[in-house]
Amino acid sequence: MNAKHVLVVLGSNLDLLGRREPHVYGHTTLEEIRAEVVARAESRGHRVTWMQSNHEGDLVDAIGQVMGDVHGILINPGAFTHTSIAIRDALLAASVPAVEVHLSNIFAREEFRRKSLISDVVTAVVSGLGAPGMIVALDALFDLLERRERDALHSED
Amino acid sequence: MNAKHVLVVLGSNLDLLGRREPHVYGHTTLEEIRAEVVARAESRGHRVTWMQSNHEGDLVDAIGQVMGDVHGILINPGAFTHTSIAIRDALLAASVPAVEVHLSNIFAREEFRRKSLISDVVTAVVSGLGAPGMIVALDALFDLLERRERDALHSED
Amino acid sequence: MNAKHVLVVLGSNLDLLGRREPHVYGHTTLEEIRAEVVARAESRGHRVTWMQSNHEGDLVDAIGQVMGDVHGILINPGAFTHTSIAIRDALLAASVPAVEVHLSNIFAREEFRRKSLISDVVTAVVSGLGAPGMIVALDALFDLLERRERDALHSED
Amino acid sequence: MNAKHVLVVLGSNLDLLGRREPHVYGHTTLEEIRAEVVARAESRGHRVTWMQSNHEGDLVDAIGQVMGDVHGILINPGAFTHTSIAIRDALLAASVPAVEVHLSNIFAREEFRRKSLISDVVTAVVSGLGAPGMIVALDALFDLLERRERDALHSED
Amino acid sequence: MNAKHVLVVLGSNLDLLGRREPHVYGHTTLEEIRAEVVARAESRGHRVTWMQSNHEGDLVDAIGQVMGDVHGILINPGAFTHTSIAIRDALLAASVPAVEVHLSNIFAREEFRRKSLISDVVTAVVSGLGAPGMIVALDALFDLLERRERDALHSED
Amino acid sequence: MNAKHVLVVLGSNLDLLGRREPHVYGHTTLEEIRAEVVARAESRGHRVTWMQSNHEGDLVDAIGQVMGDVHGILINPGAFTHTSIAIRDALLAASVPAVEVHLSNIFAREEFRRKSLISDVVTAVVSGLGAPGMIVALDALFDLLERRERDALHSED
Amino acid sequence: MNAKHVLVVLGSNLDLLGRREPHVYGHTTLEEIRAEVVARAESRGHRVTWMQSNHEGDLVDAIGQVMGDVHGILINPGAFTHTSIAIRDALLAASVPAVEVHLSNIFAREEFRRKSLISDVVTAVVSGLGAPGMIVALDALFDLLERRERDALHSED
Amino acid sequence: MNAKHVLVVLGSNLDLLGRREPHVYGHTTLEEIRAEVVARAESRGHRVTWMQSNHEGDLVDAIGQVMGDVHGILINPGAFTHTSIAIRDALLAASVPAVEVHLSNIFAREEFRRKSLISDVVTAVVSGLGAPGMIVALDALFDLLERRERDALHSED
Amino acid sequence: MNAKHVLVVLGSNLDLLGRREPHVYGHTTLEEIRAEVVARAESRGHRVTWMQSNHEGDLVDAIGQVMGDVHGILINPGAFTHTSIAIRDALLAASVPAVEVHLSNIFAREEFRRKSLISDVVTAVVSGLGAPGMIVALDALFDLLERRERDALHSED
Amino acid sequence: MNAKHVLVVLGSNLDLLGRREPHVYGHTTLEEIRAEVVARAESRGHRVTWMQSNHEGDLVDAIGQVMGDVHGILINPGAFTHTSIAIRDALLAASVPAVEVHLSNIFAREEFRRKSLISDVVTAVVSGLGAPGMIVALDALFDLLERRERDALHSED
Amino acid sequence: MNAKHVLVVLGSNLDLLGRREPHVYGHTTLEEIRAEVVARAESRGHRVTWMQSNHEGDLVDAIGQVMGDVHGILINPGAFTHTSIAIRDALLAASVPAVEVHLSNIFAREEFRRKSLISDVVTAVVSGLGAPGMIVALDALFDLLERRERDALHSED
Amino acid sequence: MNAKHVLVVLGSNLDLLGRREPHVYGHTTLEEIRAEVVARAESRGHRVTWMQSNHEGDLVDAIGQVMGDVHGILINPGAFTHTSIAIRDALLAASVPAVEVHLSNIFAREEFRRKSLISDVVTAVVSGLGAPGMIVALDALFDLLERRERDALHSED
Repeated sequence: MNAKHVLVVLGSNLDLLGRREPHVYGHTTLEEIRAEVVARAESRGHRVTWMQSNHEGDLVDAIGQVMGDVHGILINPGAFTHTSIAIRDALLAASVPAVEVHLSNIFAREEFRRKSLISDVVTAVVSGLGAPGMIVALDALFDLLERRERDALHSED
Repeated sequence: MNAKHVLVVLGSNLDLLGRREPHVYGHTTLEEIRAEVVARAESRGHRVTWMQSNHEGDLVDAIGQVMGDVHGILINPGAFTHTSIAIRDALLAASVPAVEVHLSNIFAREEFRRKSLISDVVTAVVSGLGAPGMIVALDALFDLLERRERDALHSED
Repeated sequence: MNAKHVLVVLGSNLDLLGRREPHVYGHTTLEEIRAEVVARAESRGHRVTWMQSNHEGDLVDAIGQVMGDVHGILINPGAFTHTSIAIRDALLAASVPAVEVHLSNIFAREEFRRKSLISDVVTAVVSGLGAPGMIVALDALFDLLERRERDALHSED
Repeated sequence: MNAKHVLVVLGSNLDLLGRREPHVYGHTTLEEIRAEVVARAESRGHRVTWMQSNHEGDLVDAIGQVMGDVHGILINPGAFTHTSIAIRDALLAASVPAVEVHLSNIFAREEFRRKSLISDVVTAVVSGLGAPGMIVALDALFDLLERRERDALHSED
Repeated sequence: MNAKHVLVVLGSNLDLLGRREPHVYGHTTLEEIRAEVVARAESRGHRVTWMQSNHEGDLVDAIGQVMGDVHGILINPGAFTHTSIAIRDALLAASVPAVEVHLSNIFAREEFRRKSLISDVVTAVVSGLGAPGMIVALDALFDLLERRERDALHSED
Repeated sequence: MNAKHVLVVLGSNLDLLGRREPHVYGHTTLEEIRAEVVARAESRGHRVTWMQSNHEGDLVDAIGQVMGDVHGILINPGAFTHTSIAIRDALLAASVPAVEVHLSNIFAREEFRRKSLISDVVTAVVSGLGAPGMIVALDALFDLLERRERDALHSED
Repeated sequence: MNAKHVLVVLGSNLDLLGRREPHVYGHTTLEEIRAEVVARAESRGHRVTWMQSNHEGDLVDAIGQVMGDVHGILINPGAFTHTSIAIRDALLAASVPAVEVHLSNIFAREEFRRKSLISDVVTAVVSGLGAPGMIVALDALFDLLERRERDALHSED
Repeated sequence: MNAKHVLVVLGSNLDLLGRREPHVYGHTTLEEIRAEVVARAESRGHRVTWMQSNHEGDLVDAIGQVMGDVHGILINPGAFTHTSIAIRDALLAASVPAVEVHLSNIFAREEFRRKSLISDVVTAVVSGLGAPGMIVALDALFDLLERRERDALHSED
Repeated sequence: MNAKHVLVVLGSNLDLLGRREPHVYGHTTLEEIRAEVVARAESRGHRVTWMQSNHEGDLVDAIGQVMGDVHGILINPGAFTHTSIAIRDALLAASVPAVEVHLSNIFAREEFRRKSLISDVVTAVVSGLGAPGMIVALDALFDLLERRERDALHSED
Repeated sequence: MNAKHVLVVLGSNLDLLGRREPHVYGHTTLEEIRAEVVARAESRGHRVTWMQSNHEGDLVDAIGQVMGDVHGILINPGAFTHTSIAIRDALLAASVPAVEVHLSNIFAREEFRRKSLISDVVTAVVSGLGAPGMIVALDALFDLLERRERDALHSED
Repeated sequence: MNAKHVLVVLGSNLDLLGRREPHVYGHTTLEEIRAEVVARAESRGHRVTWMQSNHEGDLVDAIGQVMGDVHGILINPGAFTHTSIAIRDALLAASVPAVEVHLSNIFAREEFRRKSLISDVVTAVVSGLGAPGMIVALDALFDLLERRERDALHSED
Repeated sequence: MNAKHVLVVLGSNLDLLGRREPHVYGHTTLEEIRAEVVARAESRGHRVTWMQSNHEGDLVDAIGQVMGDVHGILINPGAFTHTSIAIRDALLAASVPAVEVHLSNIFAREEFRRKSLISDVVTAVVSGLGAPGMIVALDALFDLLERRERDALHSED
């Protein structure tokens, strides 16, 4: 099994985690999540590239720059989930499996949060599991990539 | 840590898994998924009650009957996801953490599948990970229940 | 005045009354309401047939089976109020006066509860009076049936 | 049990009852209903203040003037049901239990009559029982007020 | 030409045919239609399996159980036409030609009856021909199945 | 031919005619129009009752008070055209031929002016002819009433 | 005062007048209306060009061909009222006063008849006065044209 | 039984049948269908008048010209199905039983094809049976006309 | 600088200020606000005319009566904000600068309060500043009127 | 390179170019545009067939008649752009590259002009360049056809 | 009273003030407004941090960076008002009183400008007062902060 | 004729051209297009300023910075086409002719791509011509600018 490279893309206001409305988002900071994510990837023999920005364009740039260089994308665009067609197009261009993850359950919040502009171009959606959901989604993405590699190997036989 | 009891509720047409549009839903049968789910629960020291039916009323009955007797619900209502307020009400009545899981990515299919009538009354949603998504969701639910028990213990200190 | 026969039809989750969200629905159980309803009917010299089910089809069956055999219908379809055209059609087929009753005020809840699929084919709607509302609606239905019989008698003179 | 004071508020065109489309609204005049309502209140040891107007502002004035002085409101705003936010605001300001009553079944008429601007700020809705519905609603309101007083007394024990 | 096996699936309230609103649905009973349908199938050297239920789940079960065992489906889901995604999914799973038939012309009735949830997954729709429409639709389905078999034979040459 | 009595009902802001946006509504004052309308009615051997008010309730009162006493209604409700169900109900109660008239062409103005709440309960609509349109509509109404009387006489022969 | 030339444009199915649903449209034929219209125009010293067609394109052609050659247009596009942007554009191109007339009151019929695609580009709308409405509208149009000529003369002084 | 006369009306682009997107519409030409339709009518002792045009106005003309002269109409308006109120009005004027037929299943195509402007004014709809559907619909229409004649005869006894 | 005259127009339920939902609207009474407003106007050398009513018609009357006599309007129509086209038309007729003010932030309340029917015909909107917002809006209006006078003077030079 | 044959299809009111609202559409007549278009086609060694009509059916006929005989279509349907599914179907049947061109910028006009019923079945859209836009679109279409021929030649090597 | 620190946040195209459509936005430049705002803050003993950017992300960054460090926010997001959920989320995270200000009256412009994505999470909205509106809003915000401090002091007594 | 200066503005993901979904966007890279665009401009004696960014704010900055310094704008905002009011406002502020160009035919893609937020503020739109469409649009823009200069010169004579 080859090591997989996953791009972790995080959008608006996620830099405030732990400080922002902790009754909603919990007390874990983004830095702590990052440490956990990196550790998990390494423990499975894979690696991640991590980026966060409040600029929609930075997310588009990041996805464009790794084109051809990553095996999967783990993405939480924050508020851009509901407004950015540019990120959607970037994911389409990237053409690798992607998992969309939301810390809170976006379906139980304001009506406008129920509509994600990327959920129909990603492979899977995980929403509402809080900070641990990042690891759940990461594991699911690695599982998927490993399974595809195994299947590809078998079909070559 | 106490053993947790989770009700697994499966709705319409899921009995056809493995035979129904395998290019969409894969070749795994529901019986195989059941075996995996039961095994995983036992390996973590928990247990599940499993039910599947094409009758909306059976799902409502099942949730009503275990009220007060389960710690969480794992639910894939199939097509009832988009049409049943009765199941939504049953979940509200049950008042335990629930995780909604869909094998396919419902957000990448027909417009009417993007609207779930229960997603705003469950704790979390997992969609698009195929049969393995059942285990992902089950684990996430057990994690959640264990974390809550731990938190409750700590706050009692 | 002839004894009147009224079918009382109750839908999804009403079996949980008294246990389900008591701050919303009160502590009276369905069995207690049934006793009151039966007693009231008898005290007025009438009788009721009582049925509750979480299966939409059971409600349709029940209405179909009494066709020609009841003088009125008292109905609280629970969540089916908002989703069942089949029950609407059964009421249309039954062609007897019907009163729709809801324990909570459905107009003060989620938007989707404001739309009843049967309210335009019943004679009257009573919503928001809690368990006592069942008796209010039953009395109103008996009053209506008695008045009609009286009017029919008079017009025969 | 203390005597209760209920404000009865009646809106547009209800002064024409008995003369206006009798096949729809019946032959009972508003004066006859008033007599019945007053009699019923007195027979239960309570009293009502009665007002009818075709002026939305009169209804708002009436509700504002009795603020703090009535225990409940029985209201049939006529056509203002569907157009008056001012009456809705007046009811909110009054902060006493209110029952909305309609002689005809508004849900079986034109689409625009299915939307009431006050039904989510009243306690209960009674629609379609004709003139007798006024007494049904009045009784339900008195029952409610008496039950609340009893409950308050008991909880004081 | 091989004998064809067609599943005839009938939904809510069709058991009341002949008794229910005869000015709309005519005086023919469902039993009479069944006799005609069976006779026609036999006269063409084919056979039918017949089922009717007021339970959406029964229809889903029936379609699921014959999967792989029927050549075509003749379906009149009654009111479920407009509300059941589960039946739609069952038809998709069955993957055989299906003809949707309605006794009345659903397009000339209430607005909500104009939208069928299955008409885009069936082969053809026949609406408004009354009881004789069942035979028209059955014949059309047998014609279609026979034509396909002939075409398949020819293309094998 | 009997003399006809027509109620002329004018709503909000029409008292400002001649002073209000004269480039839109012209320089003719309401008093001048009234004089012309009265003169025209008299010259045809009929008479009118004239009322204008900025109070929706006054219009409802006026229509209710003449019930049984007028043969037709000429109505320009001003802005109430688009907001008053009470006036619509009053017209329905009055049950005499009514002609709706607007000085400006309401269909060429803001979107919300294109929807009249009374145009489906009046006999005819005349819009956009300015002050002379009042006479056009009045004449049309008298023509209509005279024609009906003639037809009634003939059918009595 | 100069003689005015008015184009009378009539659309789909108006050729059937007198034979088509006479309880709705009356027994007057189109030929009879034409005679009346021509006579009225002549009696006022003006003239009309008359055309009727069931072809939208014929109406567009007719309006285009008289461009610069008529002083006003009287138009009843029949069903094209609700579907033809081409006729609307032709009227815009013609740039002369136009009056839209409908025999029946289009606002009291099916919802889709309430929307006219030309009413915001004509000067005035007359709807619901039956065949006599054609004369009413013609007179109103001539009045308007005469008034404009008078005003133009005066302003030249 | 008297010979019946049926008008067959065909709209836009149906002249291209056999050449136009044959994978969708099949290889049968319109001329071939015409021959089959005429033959079938004659074999049943009836006759048809056949017309096809890409001009909406021709269809309206055709229906208007046979008014009073045909017993039924078989109509496939092509794209005009979704845009022509004029054809709808012509069918209403004709006042004879009509069957609407579509070769493809219009409910399984673009959203705008799901809305037919005539389906609520015809007796029945047949959609999706390809060229053979024309014969199915013709037979159904003749069956209907014969049945009505028989019923009329019986009720005269 | 000339003294300016401003009409202060207040709509439904504002007479209840101080008594109505004080947690929302504060404890200041309308009388206290009036005193402050009058004082501020005088301290700036201007004056106000003050009116409040629960009758939409009174507001329309008031605006119409001062036409030509005031330099600006400060308006809080209460609930009429969302329902009154008559007041909108009155403001248009008045043709002087107007400032719309709301004590609560209407944009943070029910959806139907987000739409003001007058905000596109006033000069400015101030919402959410509580009772002090009346002074803020008054000052802004006086500033505006003074600035305009200054600008007019300068351009006359 | 082979000579290409392009059908130029022009719809409603384009015959009025130069005379119709010249401030919007310019002073160039359609005849002048035709001369330029023909000249340009010839100068590139290609040819055009030109047609204009105010009859939707003529456009459908024209496209149907050249099927198999043209390499591309240049189309400006005028108002039919927004109403004709028949033309859309004709273009689909034609199956050759088509360019849609509008003289004015349809996106900057009335809302209903923003929706073209053909823009998703043509290759390209050019809007807002005035008369010169016809040449731009024609050149673009010839470029496209030449490029395709070249590519086809190359891929044959 | 403590000195207050207010963040002034300005969005897209506000850097062009004075040069951009001066008939709409006036001739005052942003630099001039800044000077006035700073001066006003200082004259009241408070201070402001000022930022303007055409990058949505810069606004989100700015609000996030001062979290815990400012007492209030004065915000004019420019076009982001209508499109940015990220800024809304940032304001929610900041949890301090905010006043939204618009130079032009956004309610009197294009429909899409009437919907602000932040107006329900700010304390107050001021719209349409031009450049002076910045000072009005700043003063209102300082008034609010000072009042809150006073109230807090009093409630501590 | 003076040399013209055109700003070429390119939005999100256009940097990926040639690598991104080549079956949709072709194999030409953005660098190759730039070379062609620059060459064409020079060959006509004009010049371009070129910018591309995935940051909406960069596009707004770019347009703002050249205000007063360019004669026209050629813009392909990528996904921002459908989401950015800020770019729309910047174009309005710039007040020079602009041509909007899309490589793919946006009208033949997802529904949300059919709505451009800038197409009503640009002069012209070119969509669906691929990379060559950039030159087509550039030429059209230069033609337009040259024509305007010529016209201005002539009108000066």
